[in-house]
Amino acid sequence: MAALQRDAARTRRALLDSAGRALIVHGPGVSLDAVAREADVSKGVLLQHFRTRGELLLAVAEDWIERFDATVQRHLDPNDGEPGRWCRAHIRAAFDPAMSGGPWLHAAVQAALLATPGFLQQARASAERWQREMESDGLHPDRVTLIARALDGDAMNDLFAGVQDNARRATLCELLLSLTDDPGPLVSR
Amino acid sequence: MAALQRDAARTRRALLDSAGRALIVHGPGVSLDAVAREADVSKGVLLQHFRTRGELLLAVAEDWIERFDATVQRHLDPNDGEPGRWCRAHIRAAFDPAMSGGPWLHAAVQAALLATPGFLQQARASAERWQREMESDGLHPDRVTLIARALDGDAMNDLFAGVQDNARRATLCELLLSLTDDPGPLVSR
Repeated sequence: MAALQRDAARTRRALLDSAGRALIVHGPGVSLDAVAREADVSKGVLLQHFRTRGELLLAVAEDWIERFDATVQRHLDPNDGEPGRWCRAHIRAAFDPAMSGGPWLHAAVQAALLATPGFLQQARASAERWQREMESDGLHPDRVTLIARALDGDAMNDLFAGVQDNARRATLCELLLSLTDDPGPLVSR
Repeated sequence: MAALQRDAARTRRALLDSAGRALIVHGPGVSLDAVAREADVSKGVLLQHFRTRGELLLAVAEDWIERFDATVQRHLDPNDGEPGRWCRAHIRAAFDPAMSGGPWLHAAVQAALLATPGFLQQARASAERWQREMESDGLHPDRVTLIARALDGDAMNDLFAGVQDNARRATLCELLLSLTDDPGPLVSR
């Protein structure tokens, strides 16, 4: 039984990865048939794991959110007791090669997800949670808002820039990390 | 003839506005029939102006870009000779009530546009032009990148936040304007 469950989890993982690749090849209107072909399984096997196209796309989104959360956890430095450690972990996760540059932020994937009923509710809940995490450890709220919006914008930029400008992204990452060095207000107003 | 052209331009304007409203009501899969009903014209009249759904959606995107450009121009202060005037105009345009809070950034509209062939090329060209405008008048490039990404992120946030948090947006606007007061590097690294 444990081996069967392990197989099912492995198949599910392979199907989610295939869905990401199929979205990039076929665009946001990708069919379940195309995903099954990409995964080299019958449509019946695919339907055992995801009953509808919408269910598959929501699972792609959940998978992305879980991977991002795990990446933030990996970057939370246990030896870092200074204000801003959650912000630093979020910044490092957003610029982690495992998260960006992969198929997950590709325009076709984002377009398909935005058109999937239920996706926005899920994305909104995660965005609120991430903002609360970053606000939780002593940085001035203006800093957190600026960092959070710049991270959102960087994700958008993946979508709009077409080709990623890695040098500009590396500069942005360093800049955002530097903004967590001082916990006080950003500008005097 | 001039009167006829004026009528055609007025009809086109009304059709684009109706398309925006129909997208919000019916979601990203909205049909030309639904747009014609919303505009209270026959489908034949709609097809005289836009031959396909894709052509209509691209026109919605172009219209949004033209309106944003006009709003930036309106906020370019002729008496402002200091570095950062283009950035300030972009920030003020992004937070202008005429641009945000309207139907144009609604999730259904964004989702439909992202799935429209040709939209991303158009959006990318505009994003590059806006970045160049903001980089054109003497602010340190790090400042411009941070401001540009925060503006992109704010547009995303409209999409994800569901209900707009106007107080937080007003704070972000003030903060971004303050970041244009000093043209030098943001942090010493």
